[in-house]
Amino acid sequence: MSDNKSPEMVRISIDVMGGDFGVKEIVPALNLVIKNHADIKFLLFGDENQINQHLSKYKSLKNCVEIHHTDKAIKSDEKPSDALRSSKGTSMRMAIEAVKNGEAEAVVSAGNTGALMALSKIVLKTAQGIHRPALASVMPNVNGDVIVLDLGANILVDAENLVQFALLGSIFARAHKKIESPSVGLLNIGSEDMKGPDHVRAASDILSRIDFPGTYKGFVEGNDITNGNVDVIVCDGYAGNIALKTIEGVGKLVKHYCKKSFAANPLAMIGALFAYFPLKNLSRSMDPRLYNGGVFLGLNGICVKSHGGADALGFSTAVIMAVNLSRQGYIDQLVRDISHLTDQETFLSQDV
Amino acid sequence: MSDNKSPEMVRISIDVMGGDFGVKEIVPALNLVIKNHADIKFLLFGDENQINQHLSKYKSLKNCVEIHHTDKAIKSDEKPSDALRSSKGTSMRMAIEAVKNGEAEAVVSAGNTGALMALSKIVLKTAQGIHRPALASVMPNVNGDVIVLDLGANILVDAENLVQFALLGSIFARAHKKIESPSVGLLNIGSEDMKGPDHVRAASDILSRIDFPGTYKGFVEGNDITNGNVDVIVCDGYAGNIALKTIEGVGKLVKHYCKKSFAANPLAMIGALFAYFPLKNLSRSMDPRLYNGGVFLGLNGICVKSHGGADALGFSTAVIMAVNLSRQGYIDQLVRDISHLTDQETFLSQDV
Repeated sequence: MSDNKSPEMVRISIDVMGGDFGVKEIVPALNLVIKNHADIKFLLFGDENQINQHLSKYKSLKNCVEIHHTDKAIKSDEKPSDALRSSKGTSMRMAIEAVKNGEAEAVVSAGNTGALMALSKIVLKTAQGIHRPALASVMPNVNGDVIVLDLGANILVDAENLVQFALLGSIFARAHKKIESPSVGLLNIGSEDMKGPDHVRAASDILSRIDFPGTYKGFVEGNDITNGNVDVIVCDGYAGNIALKTIEGVGKLVKHYCKKSFAANPLAMIGALFAYFPLKNLSRSMDPRLYNGGVFLGLNGICVKSHGGADALGFSTAVIMAVNLSRQGYIDQLVRDISHLTDQETFLSQDV
Repeated sequence: MSDNKSPEMVRISIDVMGGDFGVKEIVPALNLVIKNHADIKFLLFGDENQINQHLSKYKSLKNCVEIHHTDKAIKSDEKPSDALRSSKGTSMRMAIEAVKNGEAEAVVSAGNTGALMALSKIVLKTAQGIHRPALASVMPNVNGDVIVLDLGANILVDAENLVQFALLGSIFARAHKKIESPSVGLLNIGSEDMKGPDHVRAASDILSRIDFPGTYKGFVEGNDITNGNVDVIVCDGYAGNIALKTIEGVGKLVKHYCKKSFAANPLAMIGALFAYFPLKNLSRSMDPRLYNGGVFLGLNGICVKSHGGADALGFSTAVIMAVNLSRQGYIDQLVRDISHLTDQETFLSQDV
């Protein structure tokens, strides 16, 4: 298949058996994607009968897919170690292997996060020079959005890992935000130089002196995730995951307050009717489905994790992320830039 | 003064020179407090002329205050180490010393956080058996509120520190939420036993076996801060500060989205008019002034930090927190319960 691929064509492999809804939401999601994105080929890994049953409703999508049958799937609650042992022939593993074999540029799955992380690391391997892959995501802020990484793939990291995350995030921001030198901040608990854990301060020291694809702006704090000061925020997986989950929680709290306020009494409910369109706009601004998708960066291939509970719109956001990263040549850029970073390594090692 | 103190009387010392607005917002704040809380005496430390000038508007407040003149103040941008050296005779230090000398049960300041933390530790000292004080705050959630600590007083902690924070937070929750055995969660990046940094997992191990004033509920995640599952959330200052600032940031983002949606076009603005009361309710639910105030717990005295930019309503929330903790006998309870925890220390030390 790779032989007759046009230069513009992007091939995305999809784990159709992953997530809470599987094929039922994934097939309509892919149809949403091709409405606005041409030259995409989907390699679908999952139960052929089920896929065909849902595909029958989407004529133009039919021409963009290639079905690879399997009825074996990794369960969402399986321990990553157990999932790994019995992963052969599962939709998730086959979808990842398609990237490894050069049949697809990226893989998207809504399945078991731990298993996806472990499998993609084993099958795709980390890119030359990268010590640890990181989980990155796009989050909304007052100026549009910001890329935050790591979000939980690595709990404990050292300064050099954080420096590499800054590189991984910067190249992601180039592809996603189409800016040449994205601004990068290091998440800390104060903006003064003396504050924060040792590994964060050491990383800051290195980033302020080396040459990498972003522009280092110093320490940022939790509120900088939403205030639009920087394009990329780098942190360890412990801090990043806590920030991510906190944002999810506050979003739910705001929804709870909204419902409570507008259902307080009949007058308030009439108010809600008159405010229908602005409230709908507000709800759209905060719609987590438009920010669905975490990417494992630093592997020899792109692997996007969709939220397990994503519906068609949510899953389509994750697929579009995979399409954009593939089309912008994320992996080629990474290989080029990591070797440039490695050239400065003697300098790095002295300082860490 | 302590001789003619009635049993119900609570005495709060106030650093009147601290914060962005000083006496101008602090005096009206105290007037707000006495409207709903009887038997309070305020010891005001600051410029006598300025205080009297503002006091003249509030007749009933006049009878509740005792002015201690000083025109020396710690600057908000001073480094804590510099502030410490020249702290003698400043309003902040004098207000803390009033607690040490038994003239007040608690101190409230909106001044320099680092200086307040350092000074209160030096002057009041940590309570017997407590290794490190923690900064705690009350945050809103779907069921009311939750106490979170530490929020940045300690970046690096060990398991035993976290266990002590659980104790400090539980006694705070008893006083604040009036519940006998508050539920306590440990902030982590997953609810499974094997996940998370070593010190967090070790603390979980201890908390699930020892006897302390709360009920340990296991690991919680960032979204549990707002979803109301537990009364107290314990974490290190690095994670806590990032969560706190992230919540502040998301609050501002929601406000930004709200304004944008309701100012999008004339029709949306009319919608806002009709939705005036529910929108006002919504805004009140998310008003950070109603959650102003961080408490340094674990000292021989109560020290409450108000946000530097707090207005009268915000500052009054911080003062009410100090009043409640004093009235519920926080310090006496702490002394009693820490000795009970220390009795189990042989058991603790074996496991950490």
